[in-house]
Amino acid sequence: MGLIVQKYGGSSVGDLDLIRNVARRVVETVDAGNRVAVVVSAMGGETDKLVALARKIGGEEPEPREYDVLVSTGEQKTIALLAMAIHRLGRAAVSFTGGQMGMRTDTSYGRARIASIDAQRIHRVLDDGAVAVIAGFQGIDEDGNITTLGRGGSDTSAVAVAAALDAEVCEIYTDVDGVFTTDPRMVPAARKLDRVSYDEMIEMASLGAKVLQTRAVRFAMRYGVLLHVRSSFKPDDGTWVVPEEDIMEGLFVSGVTYNRDEAKIRVRGVKDQPGIATRIFSPLANAGIVVDVIIQNLSQDGTTDVTFTVGRADFRRAVEITKRVGDEIGAADVDADDTIAKVSIVGLGMKDHAGVASRMFQVLAEQGINIQLISTSEIKVSVVIDEHQIEPAVAALHAAFVESGAAEPRTEA
Amino acid sequence: MGLIVQKYGGSSVGDLDLIRNVARRVVETVDAGNRVAVVVSAMGGETDKLVALARKIGGEEPEPREYDVLVSTGEQKTIALLAMAIHRLGRAAVSFTGGQMGMRTDTSYGRARIASIDAQRIHRVLDDGAVAVIAGFQGIDEDGNITTLGRGGSDTSAVAVAAALDAEVCEIYTDVDGVFTTDPRMVPAARKLDRVSYDEMIEMASLGAKVLQTRAVRFAMRYGVLLHVRSSFKPDDGTWVVPEEDIMEGLFVSGVTYNRDEAKIRVRGVKDQPGIATRIFSPLANAGIVVDVIIQNLSQDGTTDVTFTVGRADFRRAVEITKRVGDEIGAADVDADDTIAKVSIVGLGMKDHAGVASRMFQVLAEQGINIQLISTSEIKVSVVIDEHQIEPAVAALHAAFVESGAAEPRTEA
Repeated sequence: MGLIVQKYGGSSVGDLDLIRNVARRVVETVDAGNRVAVVVSAMGGETDKLVALARKIGGEEPEPREYDVLVSTGEQKTIALLAMAIHRLGRAAVSFTGGQMGMRTDTSYGRARIASIDAQRIHRVLDDGAVAVIAGFQGIDEDGNITTLGRGGSDTSAVAVAAALDAEVCEIYTDVDGVFTTDPRMVPAARKLDRVSYDEMIEMASLGAKVLQTRAVRFAMRYGVLLHVRSSFKPDDGTWVVPEEDIMEGLFVSGVTYNRDEAKIRVRGVKDQPGIATRIFSPLANAGIVVDVIIQNLSQDGTTDVTFTVGRADFRRAVEITKRVGDEIGAADVDADDTIAKVSIVGLGMKDHAGVASRMFQVLAEQGINIQLISTSEIKVSVVIDEHQIEPAVAALHAAFVESGAAEPRTEA
Repeated sequence: MGLIVQKYGGSSVGDLDLIRNVARRVVETVDAGNRVAVVVSAMGGETDKLVALARKIGGEEPEPREYDVLVSTGEQKTIALLAMAIHRLGRAAVSFTGGQMGMRTDTSYGRARIASIDAQRIHRVLDDGAVAVIAGFQGIDEDGNITTLGRGGSDTSAVAVAAALDAEVCEIYTDVDGVFTTDPRMVPAARKLDRVSYDEMIEMASLGAKVLQTRAVRFAMRYGVLLHVRSSFKPDDGTWVVPEEDIMEGLFVSGVTYNRDEAKIRVRGVKDQPGIATRIFSPLANAGIVVDVIIQNLSQDGTTDVTFTVGRADFRRAVEITKRVGDEIGAADVDADDTIAKVSIVGLGMKDHAGVASRMFQVLAEQGINIQLISTSEIKVSVVIDEHQIEPAVAALHAAFVESGAAEPRTEA
């Protein structure tokens, strides 16, 4: 049949029994007549242990080149163990470090970007009938220095390998069954999606549905790699992530997502004049703080309010910086709140239908939920609310948009 | 000053405090004006852990290529941690895996032999004023497969690096102060040798003085690399291992060594005819059993006795094989004894002086110690005795040959 790339994350290779399970899964795929390249992460917990060692000896910011030399041993262990386990099941397997497979990156240690892959050596192994077992997350720069792609980079490695090998599909194995319409722990009626588009997956991933790294989905979209998110422990199909044009008919809204990891800062009584936004946001960017939603109210009496959200880990620093800036630009006041949450609906169907946002606001109003901020994109509407109201908000939106089948037939793009 | 290669074994880098200690030692050497390349082993215990993992998932004989991919992560961890620790002390350091430094070997996984080293990249790092931190024990073959040199291979790596860099000296750091005239735990009068020749060191290493691998000493001798065996924890000079011609004057006998790891097998009443020795020893060699001492008595009435020793780990198998062979060749009897030990005296001085062996036998006779087997080489005399008599034997020989200063001035070769 075809050439399949399979990616198994840390929780799927967390101990020797789990690695044996992956080996069986790989051999079944080979026995079904496929050529298989497997991309793996470090065993669950291994990277954390290595990072702790690095901090103990290298301080808070260990030398970046050597940090990558250290943490890349995590995946190297997994590839060797998995290849041994496959051998033990009677199938040949050959492992590849990032360097051995020619995963060429730039030299940004700890967050390297992929430049190219030399797929020849992998093809040779596959042509010999063996399984290629590939270390995710790592590469080498043009001088042969070891680099890592940063946390979650294994998804991106897998997609890059699939693109380079021109694989039929890149299967992403996880400990959940696929991508759900919302968090099943919060809403029992949540159900698995059979298909989502790249764009929807990107919005859902960036909004906190953690099955797949946004960066990997973008990469897959750019190179036209089909993704299949599925369970390591069940044989059933999971969720396919495909180009928009391959979705003939679908849900009006594909998913309801939420994110508790946000905090809100408001700068009140700012003079409404050019350059004010830069004065506020440049110092935050320089401090490496990512700002998510930004809202500026209509001007009244020549002054306005600017409100924005940041990740909670950056909250304290962001407030300090903003207060300092607020003084400099003569703002009336800076206030802050870290008890907020963001709830979003995502769906290709919104593209062609007006009124989705207003219907969302109505559903929330019926639950007595106050909306603090609103932000929209082509296929997403996000609102910031009080964090204690997440559960009723998600449940009501899921009922209104997903369960009801509000779900009109999705028109083709 | 010069270019120095330092090698630190597993017990010298066994935890983060020990690695910091090594970093200080390296930085002191750099501060004294030297260029330094450091070769390190895996942290003590790390290799054993990796081997245990390999056995659990790969069985008693895990796939050899992947075994090397796995165990080579041990040294990779150490080089990264040591380079970080050196950075933290304010000195630049760049780590090298076997592949990165171009340590080219053959493809005998688990026991690869070094073919060549590309020293250019290391020279470039040293020329930049940085410390080169090199993974011992590992290399790559010409296809880029990871190989390991086998246990103890780090000493050999260090010597090979010293040869390739044309280093002034290769310092071997251990947890003892140097090479001793005998085991100081057994004989309090034992003392550190300032210098020994390569040949003496090889005899002493192969006889159980475990500070340095025989293979590494042979390599050093062939390429003329000066070795300096010294303590990781003390600043004092240890023992220099040098060419014979650099030893102007020395001890008649340099050391008294012993080995408890032997067992004896005797084949009695064998017909004294050509081909008998082959009939006995070929089956043992085919079974991978290394035979050490071999003695054949003078023939009486057309029959003779053949006695030999093997390592205790092979004892049971060796006895089985020999009994079978004994029946085939019509031997009168096969008996065996695993309560023996070998005691040896080693010294360049023996080369030019007759009577050393007979004096050794006399010393042992005065202690009432019975000699079971004798074997001699140019610079060594070994005897096999009852293992319960090791201590008085070693003490008496050390007193007679080393402490007494029997020690005539050693004539130059």
